[in-house]
Amino acid sequence: MGRLLVVGSVAFDTVRTPFGEATDVLGGSAVYCSTAASFFAGVNMVAVVGEDFPDEHLAFLKSRGVDVSGLERRQGRTFRWRGEYTYALNEAHTLETQLNVLESFRPKVPESYRNPDLLFLGNIDPDVQTAVLRQVARPRLVACDTMNFWIEGKRDALWAVLRDVDVLVINDAEARALGGDSNLVKVAKDILSRGPRRLIVKRGEYGALMFHGTQVFGTPAFPLEQVPDPTGAGDAFTGGWMGYLASTGDFSETGFRRAIIFGSVMASFTVEAFSLDRLRTLHYKDIESRFREFKRLTHFEEIS
Amino acid sequence: MGRLLVVGSVAFDTVRTPFGEATDVLGGSAVYCSTAASFFAGVNMVAVVGEDFPDEHLAFLKSRGVDVSGLERRQGRTFRWRGEYTYALNEAHTLETQLNVLESFRPKVPESYRNPDLLFLGNIDPDVQTAVLRQVARPRLVACDTMNFWIEGKRDALWAVLRDVDVLVINDAEARALGGDSNLVKVAKDILSRGPRRLIVKRGEYGALMFHGTQVFGTPAFPLEQVPDPTGAGDAFTGGWMGYLASTGDFSETGFRRAIIFGSVMASFTVEAFSLDRLRTLHYKDIESRFREFKRLTHFEEIS
Repeated sequence: MGRLLVVGSVAFDTVRTPFGEATDVLGGSAVYCSTAASFFAGVNMVAVVGEDFPDEHLAFLKSRGVDVSGLERRQGRTFRWRGEYTYALNEAHTLETQLNVLESFRPKVPESYRNPDLLFLGNIDPDVQTAVLRQVARPRLVACDTMNFWIEGKRDALWAVLRDVDVLVINDAEARALGGDSNLVKVAKDILSRGPRRLIVKRGEYGALMFHGTQVFGTPAFPLEQVPDPTGAGDAFTGGWMGYLASTGDFSETGFRRAIIFGSVMASFTVEAFSLDRLRTLHYKDIESRFREFKRLTHFEEIS
Repeated sequence: MGRLLVVGSVAFDTVRTPFGEATDVLGGSAVYCSTAASFFAGVNMVAVVGEDFPDEHLAFLKSRGVDVSGLERRQGRTFRWRGEYTYALNEAHTLETQLNVLESFRPKVPESYRNPDLLFLGNIDPDVQTAVLRQVARPRLVACDTMNFWIEGKRDALWAVLRDVDVLVINDAEARALGGDSNLVKVAKDILSRGPRRLIVKRGEYGALMFHGTQVFGTPAFPLEQVPDPTGAGDAFTGGWMGYLASTGDFSETGFRRAIIFGSVMASFTVEAFSLDRLRTLHYKDIESRFREFKRLTHFEEIS
């Protein structure tokens, strides 16, 4: 079983949705991704928190088997995000971002982390993503996320890091912005000609698409009757598929497709409660059970 | 092999998209649905046109094997729709609607059509849908479409017709409006408790969902590199699944799931050209070939 290195953010999230609200709850891309991945494989986490980060959150991550020796604690306050969702849950509206200790974050990968099997570069400055890549021996698989802020502001630096990335995982609006076209098939061709071997497009409640060469894989999201808070779904999705790949080492198309379903499973559990609360009580048998439900959701008989 | 009766609109569409425009081209729900269904089964069409409807369009429908003896020709002009799409192709913007002969349309089902195996009630006044139902012997399967105009303006009449309908097929915004909730799973429960045994939700570029009892089936749409004009996709989708069901008579969950894929196939071809142009040159082997591509698009291996 391989190990996954996750580099990203740790946050206090304040979230309001039509179904409730939560104040200063645990969040951040590294936390969602690592927690989701921890159900499948060993995870090392590199991130930064402030002096206000409570031991109970560290204890939770450790209880999930996440190695947090790469979690830097600095003077100041932890990164904070405040956002809101309307009934159109697919779109978060950011009300406030306090970068705090994240502003000057220059990830230092601990010696013991420098041979990861898989590496996830969460949504941070592409120059910082490149700096992380330089600190580690080439992993078997590198995946990277980004956002419109970097696509617009640091396009060249982003394309530079993408040359060294195996899988780009972004949402559809980001894919369209990066590829400069409204058509995802064209966008995928363009992006796959510039470095990444795979493009995974996150579509929220509509599921996910994966492009690889001329192959496309598509899945709907799991239909849920209650979605109190969609925060973290995308990072939990990535934690799910990368954790599963770390556990199997099977990077074939077959392996990746199963991984995308495990990612979709983790995203579906994540949105069933605020923060990471659903993942706190989740068992691996629940994951397997929902994987099978995904098969029932999408299966149809071939024609002869 | 069963026969499908289609009741709906025949239109002249004037459409502008980022990829081109077309003026007064053949369209309408009955035309898209009947043409798509004609690749699978015999189709009888009930609709109305004006004096301006050219013989070449009739000849096209006949060439597809569509029985147009139920196509009423009245004094006046044919229904006209003018609309536009931005790069967000999932949403049509109606610029102008001229009802013309459609305004006073009271469908008369010809004697020879009154024992249909399947019946599709296209998006027309729910009272008119009920009047059509009263003219035919109970078909094995009745499906019905509607739109927000009727959901808002004739809600009671719509619920009344839905009591006699087996399958309601609408898009997601319509489903949410009809069910009075943003959550599709809740909406489906509500609708399925009031008459229809199945709810099929059309999601455009995101595919389709089908609810039946506690079962859900979901498929992505086929990823296409060129989508010059999405007009008619929803009706071609319905023509595809109803035509396939008419051809097999297999209304089991297995049969319906395959049908939904055939519907998705027909929608995917329809959007590859303006009006019905792609369907004019389509062969059944193309349909089978794309069905198999759908299997490759969505297939993943079960876990043990």
